[in-house]
Amino acid sequence: MQTTFEIPTHGQGLYEFTRQVTRWTSGQGDGVLTLFVRHTSCSLLIQENADPEVQTDLHNFFARLVPPTTDPSMAYLTHTYEGPDDMPAHIKAAMMPVSLSIPVAQGRPVLGTWQGIYLFEHRNAPHRRSVAAHFLA
Amino acid sequence: MQTTFEIPTHGQGLYEFTRQVTRWTSGQGDGVLTLFVRHTSCSLLIQENADPEVQTDLHNFFARLVPPTTDPSMAYLTHTYEGPDDMPAHIKAAMMPVSLSIPVAQGRPVLGTWQGIYLFEHRNAPHRRSVAAHFLA
Amino acid sequence: MQTTFEIPTHGQGLYEFTRQVTRWTSGQGDGVLTLFVRHTSCSLLIQENADPEVQTDLHNFFARLVPPTTDPSMAYLTHTYEGPDDMPAHIKAAMMPVSLSIPVAQGRPVLGTWQGIYLFEHRNAPHRRSVAAHFLA
Repeated sequence: MQTTFEIPTHGQGLYEFTRQVTRWTSGQGDGVLTLFVRHTSCSLLIQENADPEVQTDLHNFFARLVPPTTDPSMAYLTHTYEGPDDMPAHIKAAMMPVSLSIPVAQGRPVLGTWQGIYLFEHRNAPHRRSVAAHFLA
Repeated sequence: MQTTFEIPTHGQGLYEFTRQVTRWTSGQGDGVLTLFVRHTSCSLLIQENADPEVQTDLHNFFARLVPPTTDPSMAYLTHTYEGPDDMPAHIKAAMMPVSLSIPVAQGRPVLGTWQGIYLFEHRNAPHRRSVAAHFLA
Repeated sequence: MQTTFEIPTHGQGLYEFTRQVTRWTSGQGDGVLTLFVRHTSCSLLIQENADPEVQTDLHNFFARLVPPTTDPSMAYLTHTYEGPDDMPAHIKAAMMPVSLSIPVAQGRPVLGTWQGIYLFEHRNAPHRRSVAAHFLA
């Protein structure tokens, strides 16, 4: 069983889509859910869904670890013509998951109590992101 | 076929559980093993199991890349009320795998000669960690 | 269905093997492709395959984030007897994927327009790398 989740984004940060996923697997039995993001400038992330400060902090940490190419420390980067947030987005996409595999028991992904499923957008401009999903029983 | 591996931890570092995994898949045929850690402050890792210095070095590298929130360089972080190792743990959990997919041939995960399966604990306090496992043939 | 892709490398950098993969899944139906690299000093990466500068920049970013152990900033590392690129290779292997799960529709991995599949070699010396592949329908 396959589908695609479409996630509109408006700037860098985390966008939760846990509910879309659990609604889709609901009614299925045991199996494994595969999520795969079809882009090279955003990531998939399992993270805490309790305190929104975690999401802000995650964004700020990676924004400092991989600053825009306008930052003097990033002057060695050459792929800059699509904007100062472009190459840093590719780097972050290399450091965080492009695919996730989640066991499903009786139609429910076995997420821990505090785990939510997020798309982590690394670009500033609005995008429409596609996450391919496959459920294997 | 599903199970959960329980891994008790006592402080930051790598905890190998390769043998629990290979014992569980033994007797199965060909397929894929999915491992998924049900927490947001520890990671799954495939790493060298020959020289224990690799594990110490890995821990030390990430402890410097993402220091505790008591470190002045981390003063911009806001999610700090669960202790100085809490938000750094979430950050490390974003940088390292939450799920692993390993092909299995005749009941054996196709690990390379030097590969072991580890839980990487990012918190200081003792925890009991759950790793959900699913074998699909 | 299982196979192993062999990828010869000659120094650090990205080596694309998208075509080997798509040729192998071609003719299959719907399912999930699992890729797993059987080493602890290289990574698997989905990245942009349009502009080769992206690959150079990725290599340079990680070479600065995790410099060789001959760099004074890395003097705390202890696993150094296999060369100055050895422990940094293990660290990079912890930060980037060891496995990838990609949905397949009618025999085609559902890669986005700009996505290619790469082996990211972290060692200087030539190596022959094995990537285990499994297709589950």
